[in-house]
Amino acid sequence: MNKENKIVFSPVGVIHTPFDGKEKIPRQGCFGENNDGWIEIFPEFAEGLNGLESFSHIYLLFHFHQSQGYLLTQITPRHHQIKGVFAIRSPRRPNGIGMTIVKLKKIDSNKIYFSGADMIDGTPLLDIKPYTTEIDNYPDADNGWLKTVAK
Amino acid sequence: MNKENKIVFSPVGVIHTPFDGKEKIPRQGCFGENNDGWIEIFPEFAEGLNGLESFSHIYLLFHFHQSQGYLLTQITPRHHQIKGVFAIRSPRRPNGIGMTIVKLKKIDSNKIYFSGADMIDGTPLLDIKPYTTEIDNYPDADNGWLKTVAK
Repeated sequence: MNKENKIVFSPVGVIHTPFDGKEKIPRQGCFGENNDGWIEIFPEFAEGLNGLESFSHIYLLFHFHQSQGYLLTQITPRHHQIKGVFAIRSPRRPNGIGMTIVKLKKIDSNKIYFSGADMIDGTPLLDIKPYTTEIDNYPDADNGWLKTVAK
Repeated sequence: MNKENKIVFSPVGVIHTPFDGKEKIPRQGCFGENNDGWIEIFPEFAEGLNGLESFSHIYLLFHFHQSQGYLLTQITPRHHQIKGVFAIRSPRRPNGIGMTIVKLKKIDSNKIYFSGADMIDGTPLLDIKPYTTEIDNYPDADNGWLKTVAK
């Protein structure tokens, strides 16, 4: 295997948010306000939502479709530090996969309503996974270089 | 946009684990033992690891490359419940993206050593993101249908 291997995905839905331009997107959804969004799951995948409504938080995996190219090291916008792309959440990644934990509000047929959006309106959805405290919650995790900078 | 759109990714590395067959993989890495793994980041991406060593936990996003096709609803192996694919972590997903939080042990040049592997040996790595308690830690999250079943 090498970097020439191709892995092909296709959207399972579209994420609708209040943010119609990159400059309007909050840094992270969980810190923001007025960041409700909704997802249209393409009807042929709607059956896959069965049981999701019982969770309070879900992972959205999506495509940074408006991000062009990537930089292996980048200057972080808040902290002005030079960090590797795998040590930050920047959209300019070798594989443009975004990941955000959002708060689930309601599912109505193939529509999912949530709060905590931090992606641009019209973002292609790749996957959804339930958030569980069993395997996703590490309160004692070390926040690494983020500890050394002001919030 | 629709499900005909193609999104093409390529591996940035390979994940090496003790599990050379699907039947040997533990249910979730964080519950297991003897599950140390290591990642070979392809050298051209190694610079992107700068700063990652300061975190204790990291997200690995990878390709379920040995998973064939998907089922929108599946019977969960432990609980024998019928659930939608987006409400479970099954590898048989419309887009075969796996996501596991692992514990970082050491980074040595383009090699990452970790514990908590739950993927098959030779798995293509798509992305790494740092885990931070700021945005990834929801101790009060509702575990949904998992609450109603024995561990």
